Amino acid sequence: MRIPLDRSNGIPLYQQIEAWLRQNILSGGLPTDTRLPATRSLADELGVSRITVQNAYAVLESDGLILTREGSGTFVAPVPRLGWAEEVDGGDWPLWQAQFEGQAAVSPPQTRHPDLISFTGVGDPRHFPFREFSRTIQEVLRRDGTAALEYGSFDNGHLPLRETVIHILASQGIQSRPEHVLITSGSQQGLALVCQVLLQAGDVVLVEKPTYNLALELFRSLGLKVVGIPVDRNGMQVEELEPLLQQHCPRLIYTIPNFQNPSGACLSSARRRQLLALADRYNVPILEDDFAGDLRYEGRSQPAIKSFDPGGRVIYLGTFSKMLMPGLRVGYLLAHGPVFEQFVCQKRVLDLTTTPLMQRALDRYVTIGRYQAYLRRSVRLFRQRRDAMVTAVQRYLPEAAFSIPQGGLFLWLKFADGFSSSRLLPVALSLGVEFAPGVRFFADSAEGEPYLRLNFASCTPQEIETGIRRLRQAVETLS
Amino acid sequence: MRIPLDRSNGIPLYQQIEAWLRQNILSGGLPTDTRLPATRSLADELGVSRITVQNAYAVLESDGLILTREGSGTFVAPVPRLGWAEEVDGGDWPLWQAQFEGQAAVSPPQTRHPDLISFTGVGDPRHFPFREFSRTIQEVLRRDGTAALEYGSFDNGHLPLRETVIHILASQGIQSRPEHVLITSGSQQGLALVCQVLLQAGDVVLVEKPTYNLALELFRSLGLKVVGIPVDRNGMQVEELEPLLQQHCPRLIYTIPNFQNPSGACLSSARRRQLLALADRYNVPILEDDFAGDLRYEGRSQPAIKSFDPGGRVIYLGTFSKMLMPGLRVGYLLAHGPVFEQFVCQKRVLDLTTTPLMQRALDRYVTIGRYQAYLRRSVRLFRQRRDAMVTAVQRYLPEAAFSIPQGGLFLWLKFADGFSSSRLLPVALSLGVEFAPGVRFFADSAEGEPYLRLNFASCTPQEIETGIRRLRQAVETLS
Repeated sequence: MRIPLDRSNGIPLYQQIEAWLRQNILSGGLPTDTRLPATRSLADELGVSRITVQNAYAVLESDGLILTREGSGTFVAPVPRLGWAEEVDGGDWPLWQAQFEGQAAVSPPQTRHPDLISFTGVGDPRHFPFREFSRTIQEVLRRDGTAALEYGSFDNGHLPLRETVIHILASQGIQSRPEHVLITSGSQQGLALVCQVLLQAGDVVLVEKPTYNLALELFRSLGLKVVGIPVDRNGMQVEELEPLLQQHCPRLIYTIPNFQNPSGACLSSARRRQLLALADRYNVPILEDDFAGDLRYEGRSQPAIKSFDPGGRVIYLGTFSKMLMPGLRVGYLLAHGPVFEQFVCQKRVLDLTTTPLMQRALDRYVTIGRYQAYLRRSVRLFRQRRDAMVTAVQRYLPEAAFSIPQGGLFLWLKFADGFSSSRLLPVALSLGVEFAPGVRFFADSAEGEPYLRLNFASCTPQEIETGIRRLRQAVETLS
Repeated sequence: MRIPLDRSNGIPLYQQIEAWLRQNILSGGLPTDTRLPATRSLADELGVSRITVQNAYAVLESDGLILTREGSGTFVAPVPRLGWAEEVDGGDWPLWQAQFEGQAAVSPPQTRHPDLISFTGVGDPRHFPFREFSRTIQEVLRRDGTAALEYGSFDNGHLPLRETVIHILASQGIQSRPEHVLITSGSQQGLALVCQVLLQAGDVVLVEKPTYNLALELFRSLGLKVVGIPVDRNGMQVEELEPLLQQHCPRLIYTIPNFQNPSGACLSSARRRQLLALADRYNVPILEDDFAGDLRYEGRSQPAIKSFDPGGRVIYLGTFSKMLMPGLRVGYLLAHGPVFEQFVCQKRVLDLTTTPLMQRALDRYVTIGRYQAYLRRSVRLFRQRRDAMVTAVQRYLPEAAFSIPQGGLFLWLKFADGFSSSRLLPVALSLGVEFAPGVRFFADSAEGEPYLRLNFASCTPQEIETGIRRLRQAVETLS
């Protein structure tokens, strides 16, 4: 127990020890039944005489804060807790902290509606074969022993899992090899490390407008400039791209070509080829985020941009989170050429390695057959839910404009100009429905006010009906 | 199955489909028993006629690559695999990849000695109560259900685990509150996000010389300038600090005050206070990496620098990896003041959240009592191993100079000038012993040639004796 002592301030050492222990016991830092070191060993550790420690313990014991159990040692007594240690006084932060003052982006805590319907999740946890997966984890622990909890090697991830990824990619029209796959801690990490390797503060990244909110947050945190290309029913308006490439000299194009987040749009085949050709001509890497590319409910599928890549032009991000459970925190990145090794190195300095147990459990659980079966089930289920949401929105929110997405997870509503989805949110929450306000999906957040994003995949048709009705109420309350 | 088709190249679509499937089946991308889509649904998906798909399947079936099982569908047949798809030709990388060419830092694969003794690990996996921890994981899955595999909230981590961290910190002399703790994906992530929030490319970071190799790799990847302060038996030579602060205006001081990695030195109490005072005077944040602060085998303990912090000067990093298992990938960061919220935001853009299952399992497993008991066992075991290594080195490598560390994991040997530990490594590996060459621990790697770092905690005394004997052989082979 490394108690900080000050030998120069004139306060007797036993009092310093006693005061420190008292404070920690009362604040709950040292909870009931914590064993205190034996007096001799604490004395040795602190470099004081044994009698000093004995004196400190004696005062605490007479005050009922600690008790000695014959033969087993000294323990913290069950005492009423006064609450965690006092806050450090906020008035005295060092100067270097001044730049961060007032920047806190945390929303004030709200009392949660007892029966909140949330249109903000990703998939539906109730739909996840939880028992089977739990069993898989246990099997892996039994089979692999401590290896499942060691580092593994600091390379591009558990090899059998990378082979599984290759099988999944093949079913998505992408042909590759395990040595081009890097396992990441979710696709968010893939996004972060691509940006960190390819870009510097001040560089321009071209994105769809609107785009994924946490990509925007990442770009902001890295000091990147964001230039947006508007999205229509067929995805990014690639026709608008060339002047922007000339004007801004971007260092990266970030695109979500399938069932885009948040707009739900799917990039047409012609635009995919055109995008790749332009990126090649202007020497800009493409980062293709295919977070839900397989979740198609109707219409003709579009091959990944990566499948047209003649070599090293496209970096492809995939994830298991959307198909299985988000808390698995395992995604993957596919890239070719010398840059791949840089991603591997950057991954290592970011967090060494992705939890080996999760990698091994996923590998054992996700066979290509299971993946396909799971996909078929999800498509059936989510299609129904999309239809339920379309019906409910048409009924209760007829003033909202939207395109029916052919897949994915999101409905993207547009209200009239002057509408404020960020003002709507607290009202909606108080009425028991949650959504993602459009402001999160635009670099210039004001542009997003008329929009809101609804996830239809995580709620049953009944919940969807109820939730959209509540949203109607919220809209009326606001206006 | 999103097969990429080209409608403009004149090759019949059925041939394109057939060729694509054939290639993927032969390369192993689509393994045996993968179910192919029904002809009608693949036709719909690709926007071709059903007869086109039927023709493609017919050719593949007559070649024995796929087979139809009456009533259950079409599957990939068991065929000899020709190996993963061909490499993309490396000659045609886009121009933007040129900067990464030849930068690959991967060491050539070596045939592993059948009975390699490695002095490079962290703790000893054989010593980890694996069964108990496996049971804990299963209990958490049973107790929490899918919640253990969902995102949780994107805040500073699972609250009960943060409370546990406060208890552990209290036993280390640091008093704080759960709202100042951020759970990270290992302490490496803590290090990364502190640097990313506080520093920009070109900024100077002051470090001990030598210092932790993956910190150096991180600094390099972020484009930081590294200025080193030599270490002696009492840690960083803080007396040398002031002129460096004046000359280089560093934006961060990174220190490992306890059983420093790699030198094993422990920063004296006087120097701790002096370091804090200087950092305060020159307005520089301190990042205190306390990766093994509790692993003391003798001598007087030193309170963490964080325990003297009057408020917001010191950012403290801790980890469960060294005490338990490295593959858990859970660490924590303690910080005060407005900067804390920035760390929380940066953590979110880096990887959203740390695997919830691991956070919950750790919380359930690590009680303060268990932590203390585990620590006592580790101290007993590792002290013996340190002594065994000291004896073996004195016997077999009498020419190596070193200080006996009072705790931690490492022995840091210095050979004569002109000695090259990086040339020694391949020889040592071929003789069945592994160590970390000194070059990894210096910003200017040449300075590290005479040094090597040995981890004594992960091997038994017998293994240590054998390993050091092999190292003797290696030294002789080299000279």
